[in-house]
Amino acid sequence: MRIGMVGLGRMGGNMAERLRRGGHEVIGYDRDPRVSDVGSLAELVDRLQPPRTVWVMVPSGEPTRAVVAELAELLSPGDLVVDGGNSHYADDRGHAERLGAKGIGFVDVGVSGGVWGLHQGYALMVGGTEEDVRRLMPIFETLKPEGEDGFVHAGGHGAGHFAKMVHNGIEYGMMQALAEGWELLEASDLVTDVAGCFRSWRSGTVIRSWLLDLLVRALEEDEELSRLRGYAEDSGEGRWAVQAAVEHAVPLPVITAALYARFASRQPDSPAMKVVAALRNQFGGHAVTS
Amino acid sequence: MRIGMVGLGRMGGNMAERLRRGGHEVIGYDRDPRVSDVGSLAELVDRLQPPRTVWVMVPSGEPTRAVVAELAELLSPGDLVVDGGNSHYADDRGHAERLGAKGIGFVDVGVSGGVWGLHQGYALMVGGTEEDVRRLMPIFETLKPEGEDGFVHAGGHGAGHFAKMVHNGIEYGMMQALAEGWELLEASDLVTDVAGCFRSWRSGTVIRSWLLDLLVRALEEDEELSRLRGYAEDSGEGRWAVQAAVEHAVPLPVITAALYARFASRQPDSPAMKVVAALRNQFGGHAVTS
Amino acid sequence: MRIGMVGLGRMGGNMAERLRRGGHEVIGYDRDPRVSDVGSLAELVDRLQPPRTVWVMVPSGEPTRAVVAELAELLSPGDLVVDGGNSHYADDRGHAERLGAKGIGFVDVGVSGGVWGLHQGYALMVGGTEEDVRRLMPIFETLKPEGEDGFVHAGGHGAGHFAKMVHNGIEYGMMQALAEGWELLEASDLVTDVAGCFRSWRSGTVIRSWLLDLLVRALEEDEELSRLRGYAEDSGEGRWAVQAAVEHAVPLPVITAALYARFASRQPDSPAMKVVAALRNQFGGHAVTS
Amino acid sequence: MRIGMVGLGRMGGNMAERLRRGGHEVIGYDRDPRVSDVGSLAELVDRLQPPRTVWVMVPSGEPTRAVVAELAELLSPGDLVVDGGNSHYADDRGHAERLGAKGIGFVDVGVSGGVWGLHQGYALMVGGTEEDVRRLMPIFETLKPEGEDGFVHAGGHGAGHFAKMVHNGIEYGMMQALAEGWELLEASDLVTDVAGCFRSWRSGTVIRSWLLDLLVRALEEDEELSRLRGYAEDSGEGRWAVQAAVEHAVPLPVITAALYARFASRQPDSPAMKVVAALRNQFGGHAVTS
Repeated sequence: MRIGMVGLGRMGGNMAERLRRGGHEVIGYDRDPRVSDVGSLAELVDRLQPPRTVWVMVPSGEPTRAVVAELAELLSPGDLVVDGGNSHYADDRGHAERLGAKGIGFVDVGVSGGVWGLHQGYALMVGGTEEDVRRLMPIFETLKPEGEDGFVHAGGHGAGHFAKMVHNGIEYGMMQALAEGWELLEASDLVTDVAGCFRSWRSGTVIRSWLLDLLVRALEEDEELSRLRGYAEDSGEGRWAVQAAVEHAVPLPVITAALYARFASRQPDSPAMKVVAALRNQFGGHAVTS
Repeated sequence: MRIGMVGLGRMGGNMAERLRRGGHEVIGYDRDPRVSDVGSLAELVDRLQPPRTVWVMVPSGEPTRAVVAELAELLSPGDLVVDGGNSHYADDRGHAERLGAKGIGFVDVGVSGGVWGLHQGYALMVGGTEEDVRRLMPIFETLKPEGEDGFVHAGGHGAGHFAKMVHNGIEYGMMQALAEGWELLEASDLVTDVAGCFRSWRSGTVIRSWLLDLLVRALEEDEELSRLRGYAEDSGEGRWAVQAAVEHAVPLPVITAALYARFASRQPDSPAMKVVAALRNQFGGHAVTS
Repeated sequence: MRIGMVGLGRMGGNMAERLRRGGHEVIGYDRDPRVSDVGSLAELVDRLQPPRTVWVMVPSGEPTRAVVAELAELLSPGDLVVDGGNSHYADDRGHAERLGAKGIGFVDVGVSGGVWGLHQGYALMVGGTEEDVRRLMPIFETLKPEGEDGFVHAGGHGAGHFAKMVHNGIEYGMMQALAEGWELLEASDLVTDVAGCFRSWRSGTVIRSWLLDLLVRALEEDEELSRLRGYAEDSGEGRWAVQAAVEHAVPLPVITAALYARFASRQPDSPAMKVVAALRNQFGGHAVTS
Repeated sequence: MRIGMVGLGRMGGNMAERLRRGGHEVIGYDRDPRVSDVGSLAELVDRLQPPRTVWVMVPSGEPTRAVVAELAELLSPGDLVVDGGNSHYADDRGHAERLGAKGIGFVDVGVSGGVWGLHQGYALMVGGTEEDVRRLMPIFETLKPEGEDGFVHAGGHGAGHFAKMVHNGIEYGMMQALAEGWELLEASDLVTDVAGCFRSWRSGTVIRSWLLDLLVRALEEDEELSRLRGYAEDSGEGRWAVQAAVEHAVPLPVITAALYARFASRQPDSPAMKVVAALRNQFGGHAVTS
């Protein structure tokens, strides 16, 4: 298939490469002229034949909304836009309506894979109509990992990003569980081969997993993780998962705790704990650390 | 009443003073000869008339156990030992048995009051037999705040310290709730008079409380709490409350979260978050902060 | 002052009553003709003299938005609308803009007080311009409790509801802390007078508070709380507090745990725990309860 | 090797079988004469040649302590006892000392594998001296899964059970993360193929893991998990992990939340939430559900 790819950063660039290796013709557009095949979105659209397919892979929020709005002007009825970025699921409905009003289809895709996707394939979670998804199957087949898994048509517009958001929430919880286990092992004198424990757990245990494999790799490079600071950004999906849970009155204690641990990791000092220190000082005359 | 007080630190010293002001005769013993009325525990025991009452107010754990063991040797049947320190409730049974074997009574008392107790009185949570508690009532009446509250005979041996432990667990949770509220108000630009909010809440609201009053005092001294670090010790009771809850299969999410926030406040860097950073680096090529 | 009150339910009705007792002239409008002084919003507006003041006290969300929209049509430049309901702080900006475009002022007020407010006064957290707030001071003075507390001009539009939202978040955390303490005391055999502990804590302790007073009242009516189910609704502010915290990357572990405990209390069965049961069955052959 | 196996329940019986298939001679003892090879522990000891090896695989706590105490009487210097049950790590030191005083070696082994271990092998986490562990390597080689992983000599006495305890804590957190994700997907209408999402996640995602595989199996048998109740026991290690963390001042928010979710799942009604309901009723006149 011929496909336009908007956004050729780390994710978009590698996905374009995987598609080309799979025999597709990819015309890429990026604001950076050094990597872009065309000079503008308009030129990209010109280079594609109707019915066109344009895969948008730019940062979520305003950048994605701007590209979709511009495509709504440039594309023709029968064309199809895919948002493969990390958009909030609520944005998808708006995009589907805006494009649909012009007869343009829309599909949202949550993409997992990171730096490993180029070679191992990208897990795809897809939201949209049966018809639009069917049209994109050759693309999906090339992007996804080999085998029967790694692809789901999760539901209508927004379902792809919603599923990806939940995936990331689960990921936060699993990572934090491994992290707490490591901290507890390190805190005790009893276990003298902590890295060996994690290595051994890769076989025969209940917790064997890709994240465990990655942690073993990390510990092999830096057994005490002494070259790292305990600092972690969050990418948005974890926040949205908690907010969606609150909206649906679903208790999410583990995923939320994992998110809050990231928030706290970024605070040079905890404002809340200043209050606790102040109160202890007031009622107990406890010495405070200033 | 005449009573021996062992341990004349901040708590014991002030309690002795409140008892003297209330008309009791207090003979104090402390390892520090500058504040001690006698040179040894043996001399303290000599100075009291049977049936003697000795109130132990030393650090929990080994120091308290050592004093109780020595008193078990020095005292006579019919005497009475009170442990008013922050002992673990499980220690009380051992002390009651050891002393009981010699015909010596034992009462455990959880004491709340901090630096305010001398003037406002100490809240007392008491564990022991009806008879022993009745004997001590003149002492309790003087120590406790005025009015009908501030004293409870909570149950048998250990009940006093158990009740105090739960009180402190609740305290942790309430403090953390206030602290989180302050942090959220500070994080938003909407509210420009954060200290004013807390001040106003002292009347007519659901959260009016002594802790709120103390927070207002602290904010009046240092509106942004800029002279404090977000660092808080924990005194043991919070940990024991969580461990007791786990033993009884009681979920304690709020009190535990408050305890963990204190633990985290004391870590210069979070080991667990190093793992999260390492994993993010492995799967996503996310930049790490080193 | 003369003031219009829209919404004469439990809150609005009592507030109107307190205002009348304080010497104000209140003209009330409610959809229920049995309690309404006028037949329509338009009639209410007619009965007031410019510059008019209309206090809206209807359910948050759509009902409040509808009333404000109608008032925007009916009122004149120089008039003033107060939203005293439990609105989301983000709604306030829209209301201020909509009304401001017609020269009508807007003030948002978070009101605390429940069934006790009529007699004890309502705590008021206020957002708006200096000028608008000054105009309303006679009303606020009557509604608020006696003394210098119970009122704060927290900031611009939205600050009143934001402050109230945080107050309620703190309230959730404090309630849950007390609740967990009660459950732990009940779970242990050591403390035989649980209600007595709570009663005693009203004096001399760190946790003395209005919520503790209320819990003692509840325990006096029903010592084992056997007439209640462990079921609790949430009113919206707790959810918004968590969502705002997530938006600001503020960790809120205690308040969130308290919110989730309410969510869980309303589930006849936990979907998440079905998954845990299913997994235990898969890997361990653990018997499942069906 | 010849080895004695004490306890031939689900775990011990399958481990004995795997050892026999691996060419070892296993003499089993169980209180149930239908599965036991010998009539008593004494007979078991008689049937083994010095230096003997006895693997204890009985319930943790009193049963294990009783067997170890009896073996301390029956065995000879140079013999070796293995505790492969789910003992608390603190018990191991006592066992090592008691047996060591008689010249008998002791090794603690945390065993993971459940019903899958017979065929796939058991992951082994081992605590003890170099010498004792080396002697047992033929046994460990047969029990463990194929490949280089699945075995670790974690440290001295107690390290094996400590490592296993942490493994199970991580397991709790991971299970709960998956469980919360499922609940959130089910709560939203957006995703219409929830089971398909989980199935697809087995490839290319960050969360691919054995637990995910098991969940897919469970969902294939019962897509809505409608045959299960949301009820989960805990096996002890999760509790000990939290208690150890509290002792070491390590924050463990995710693992603790997972444990508390299990506690809550077993409560027909939540005592804590009765208090919340009572308080809401007191201050707000909120209707309570009784």
